[in-house]
Amino acid sequence: MNETQEYKGQVFNDLHSAEGIFVMPNAWNAGSACMLEAAGFPAVGTTSAGIAFCLGLPDYEGALTRKAALDETRRIAGAVRIPVSVDAENGYGHTPEEVAETIRRVADTGAVGASIEDYSPAYGSGDMYDRDLAVARIEAAVATAASLPFPFTLTARAECYLVGHPDPFGESVARANSYRDAGADCLYVPGMTDAETIGRLVTEVDAPVNVVMGLSGSPMSVNQLEDLGVKRVSIGGSLARAAFGLIRRAAAEIREHGTFSYAKEQVPDAELCRFFASRLNPTNS
Amino acid sequence: MNETQEYKGQVFNDLHSAEGIFVMPNAWNAGSACMLEAAGFPAVGTTSAGIAFCLGLPDYEGALTRKAALDETRRIAGAVRIPVSVDAENGYGHTPEEVAETIRRVADTGAVGASIEDYSPAYGSGDMYDRDLAVARIEAAVATAASLPFPFTLTARAECYLVGHPDPFGESVARANSYRDAGADCLYVPGMTDAETIGRLVTEVDAPVNVVMGLSGSPMSVNQLEDLGVKRVSIGGSLARAAFGLIRRAAAEIREHGTFSYAKEQVPDAELCRFFASRLNPTNS
Repeated sequence: MNETQEYKGQVFNDLHSAEGIFVMPNAWNAGSACMLEAAGFPAVGTTSAGIAFCLGLPDYEGALTRKAALDETRRIAGAVRIPVSVDAENGYGHTPEEVAETIRRVADTGAVGASIEDYSPAYGSGDMYDRDLAVARIEAAVATAASLPFPFTLTARAECYLVGHPDPFGESVARANSYRDAGADCLYVPGMTDAETIGRLVTEVDAPVNVVMGLSGSPMSVNQLEDLGVKRVSIGGSLARAAFGLIRRAAAEIREHGTFSYAKEQVPDAELCRFFASRLNPTNS
Repeated sequence: MNETQEYKGQVFNDLHSAEGIFVMPNAWNAGSACMLEAAGFPAVGTTSAGIAFCLGLPDYEGALTRKAALDETRRIAGAVRIPVSVDAENGYGHTPEEVAETIRRVADTGAVGASIEDYSPAYGSGDMYDRDLAVARIEAAVATAASLPFPFTLTARAECYLVGHPDPFGESVARANSYRDAGADCLYVPGMTDAETIGRLVTEVDAPVNVVMGLSGSPMSVNQLEDLGVKRVSIGGSLARAAFGLIRRAAAEIREHGTFSYAKEQVPDAELCRFFASRLNPTNS
């Protein structure tokens, strides 16, 4: 692809300050990223869950190695012209130095953004990182991002809802604002599932907020999320998991009925060949 | 996985001489292979088309390298306990020596079978290999397979229907019988789409026959194929392409309606995590 990392980095950064909302769906390999790009999305994220499942691994910390995640990321970033933001889990390490090293390696894949979580089941008794450590981790990531020769967009995640914090909303707002003060470009509080809570978060955090859709909870539309002031919508591993749902249903159909009706849903072979060939040789398309 | 390649190789070989038909669906990564294994299939094939598409490549000869195909094959074979047979395209080379080398490399991935096609768009004027060369290629593959320290099942493909041969049935039967005489364990004539023709082929070829389902043409059930005397049913890239169909529909839904109803089809995250974790640690499942 001809677009430079500097160009992609600027495009991605600008999306967060432009008017309105944008959707950044999550890809798990180059092919899914290409198809999402062709649908018109302005950026794609990666999904560590989707990448892990396709390797036959659970989405548990430690199962998917940083190297395996970033090998896939490199293929994704090399296959699309739009910016790629990496689901970098907890930064693949507890210390600020380890998080900084992960940002350097993410940048080396061709991606122009990453999200860092403030929780690790392997840390202490399985709690969130203390707020001071969590802030130091974001500061280290931000400093590394600032040292790169292109704009890098850092997303800080507050996992209070997912870990069952006793005051999830208050702690999320406090952490999100600390991460914003530490220089994070975008805040992300997974596990918020109702419009009222999301609206309050957006009001109390003075920075772009990412919301994930496609998981459990009451579904909202992109328009509803925009009305709440949400800047960015991701889909986590939901589409990758839907593909596994399709595989499971098709396998059951073949086993139980000996039929192949799943095949009606396929994109014809010639069409996929043309699609991917035209992307390799854009002038021939 | 604990099963040895010798064990898997024998299991796969035995499937071809056992009574009745079996289905060998085609996987494109470790995750899809695990899910197909869990559904109860006794073996999986790989699909070079599916592997190529997931890498953002067309399914044209030369786009997917042997190395990339076999890297994915290694992950697939390492993730399942059932035998894996490799879609080795034209053997990644025209000469018998190149085909032999490909069989050695396939064996090194942990797979216990492979299919070799008798057509390459990059050979001569884009025709099938001359019958003599095609037979020499199968002989070389069979000799290499026989030199391995485990049973290796070789499938020979006759591409007469796909390349539009003027006498596709006659040429397919002649070639299939030549490949059988050269030692191929299973014969495969892609592009036969009606029951009568498949039934005639099975009668005229004295060896196990593979038929592909999930493509165009009149769909038949596994029971109907068994009644015709077919030994093995594969699905080519159809399930991989159905997953791309799902991605495309979901992307269109998000773009056009801002909704996420595709997510209802997903396997829940916790369930996929348990599934893949239990396969890594079978004693904990």
